[in-house]
Amino acid sequence: CRDHTHIPYTFDEYIHRIRRFHGYAAPGLILGGKMVSMALDRLDESILFDSVCETAFCLPDAIQMLTLCTTGNGWLKVVPLGRFALSLYDKLNGSGFRVHIDSAKINAWPEIKAWFYKLKPKAEQDNDRLHEEMATAGENLFSVQTIRMQPAFLEKREVGPTADCPICHEAYPVRHGRICRGCQGSAPYR
Amino acid sequence: CRDHTHIPYTFDEYIHRIRRFHGYAAPGLILGGKMVSMALDRLDESILFDSVCETAFCLPDAIQMLTLCTTGNGWLKVVPLGRFALSLYDKLNGSGFRVHIDSAKINAWPEIKAWFYKLKPKAEQDNDRLHEEMATAGENLFSVQTIRMQPAFLEKREVGPTADCPICHEAYPVRHGRICRGCQGSAPYR
Ligand SMILES: [Zn+2]
Ligand SMILES: [Zn+2]
Repeated sequence: CRDHTHIPYTFDEYIHRIRRFHGYAAPGLILGGKMVSMALDRLDESILFDSVCETAFCLPDAIQMLTLCTTGNGWLKVVPLGRFALSLYDKLNGSGFRVHIDSAKINAWPEIKAWFYKLKPKAEQDNDRLHEEMATAGENLFSVQTIRMQPAFLEKREVGPTADCPICHEAYPVRHGRICRGCQGSAPYR
Repeated sequence: CRDHTHIPYTFDEYIHRIRRFHGYAAPGLILGGKMVSMALDRLDESILFDSVCETAFCLPDAIQMLTLCTTGNGWLKVVPLGRFALSLYDKLNGSGFRVHIDSAKINAWPEIKAWFYKLKPKAEQDNDRLHEEMATAGENLFSVQTIRMQPAFLEKREVGPTADCPICHEAYPVRHGRICRGCQGSAPYR
């Protein structure tokens, strides 16, 4: 695969990068690299693009590793539709490309199919064969479609005015209410 | 600041890394590096830790750059409480450390205060002075507290069984219903 600056990665180089960022060589992230590359190849080089990922599992990290779209800058959004698909699109007009894993094409690759549909326990998964099938399959596991994002989805995120919460004294967005959401009881810790 | 493997970064090295990952030297990410370091310094080295970030703006990327917690592996979760705070905690028992920007301490740093509370337009922001104040302030902008995560928050995320959607023919989690969420109308594109 390759990144947004056209730096190409061999299969092994990319797996090395995955380990450093994601912690382990997740198969979904290996496929994700090819998917990001396929979308990048189709985008006009002159545009600024944002991205949407339809699953929170693995795939967002392929986007974060190979483009400048991240969770923290908001150029990557995860919309949890549960499908193994990602889109890169023009930040201004919303037109772009969606790449998804294609159920019809996956049938040609038994080890990929077994992993993707969890047809056998992880302990029985043959990782060497899985990687070999992924390297051989290349782009032949995916389909691409053109998309246009809904206008509401293109709006820039804004924090708006902030103030100090009268209870915890930390700054928070005033639109959340009279006290911050943490003090409203939404904090996941004690 | 430093990362989870104890590699230290000078102020300028870290800003260079921010630009490559996040696209531009966001002030929130500069502060975030120090916050992650402060939490790492307090965690027992022998544990596996997860993280929670209380804002989706900038700060999640400091965690992703300096630890192995990412959006895609689920070891980073964003809980949008709107507070500039992050926590690293023991994946198993939920005990850990929360670091937040401290409204009382920020008063000593006029340029940081002006940026954080958006007291002047971005065009009038003096970036050199802002960076200088951040480098000088170091840890003296933040407070740390011990936390314990709610048990429900520690549960491992699972996709569960998947099947091909009868409409789009893509794989999706069966628990989403008879058809996938995309085909239910939740896709943000046409
Ligand atoms: Zn509060
Ligand atoms: Zn569907």
